[in-house]
Amino acid sequence: MALVYAHPYPDRSRANRALLEAVRDLPGLDVRPLFDLYPDYDLDVAAEQRALVAAHTVVWQHPLHWYSVPGLLKLWFDQVLARGFAYGGGRALAGKRCLWVVTTGGELDAYGPSGMHGHPFAEFEPPIRQTARFCGMEWLEPIVVHGAHHVSDTELARTGERYRARLAALEAEGGARP
Amino acid sequence: MALVYAHPYPDRSRANRALLEAVRDLPGLDVRPLFDLYPDYDLDVAAEQRALVAAHTVVWQHPLHWYSVPGLLKLWFDQVLARGFAYGGGRALAGKRCLWVVTTGGELDAYGPSGMHGHPFAEFEPPIRQTARFCGMEWLEPIVVHGAHHVSDTELARTGERYRARLAALEAEGGARP
Repeated sequence: MALVYAHPYPDRSRANRALLEAVRDLPGLDVRPLFDLYPDYDLDVAAEQRALVAAHTVVWQHPLHWYSVPGLLKLWFDQVLARGFAYGGGRALAGKRCLWVVTTGGELDAYGPSGMHGHPFAEFEPPIRQTARFCGMEWLEPIVVHGAHHVSDTELARTGERYRARLAALEAEGGARP
Repeated sequence: MALVYAHPYPDRSRANRALLEAVRDLPGLDVRPLFDLYPDYDLDVAAEQRALVAAHTVVWQHPLHWYSVPGLLKLWFDQVLARGFAYGGGRALAGKRCLWVVTTGGELDAYGPSGMHGHPFAEFEPPIRQTARFCGMEWLEPIVVHGAHHVSDTELARTGERYRARLAALEAEGGARP
């Protein structure tokens, strides 16, 4: 499994860090902390593609920034999910599973026609989900943590356990897949 | 007016270049070609913010990459539309207008439940539109060019004229606004 982790300020993260800590020692997990690996935005595309090829499941974990992935993860989409590799002749990711793990600063009720974010959260999902699907990946039910700045430690621990259990189950299944 | 232009390979662009050429000599237009200005992704946030403050209209022009803005423009969102400047205490962009000018590789009929992109094009718009609205900007009707690789020169010229007329009208109105 490849876990692509994109938090611009890992030290200031609470929710993302807690979630990452809940899973990072799982066997078979290759954590790719993009902001540590590429502080100058100079992605090693070949290394990232190798990590994906070796994985049966791809996790994208990040805080939501401007209703999308942080800029560095968007660069990763643009450069790593390249024509000839992920689509347009290449099918390197086809049949793999994709799990989106995202934290938001806003409360759930901020997402809605009358909330400050103007849309239900689900209406911000299509670009991310369709990116995975266009590459032939199976889109799994995402893990979404709202109100990341003040969700309780208990709630965060519970979500971390659920995250760990899901990855462990995917790893157990993974070997059985082509 | 500030025109934030984000094409990763300006030399390989046909549609975006034609659209840019159609407007770039308009009086009052400050073109910010992000990939020329920041080839190393090292944004001058203060300069970008000054350009926005001076503008009554902000244009985001780019090809659609993975159903969103190119990575460098996403970085620009993350860094330039900063807390304290664009929201969260700052309201530097409130009342300005925002025009999205976007080209896609896919045909219109590729956007739909049965098309290769799985969704009507409009379902990829919320993250971009809401970014503008969260900053208090007025979202104008976007200019969308589908099938950018093989739209005819005539059609492209017509869209360029329409683009130019809209910016000229916005500039004429602009002085009348606070």
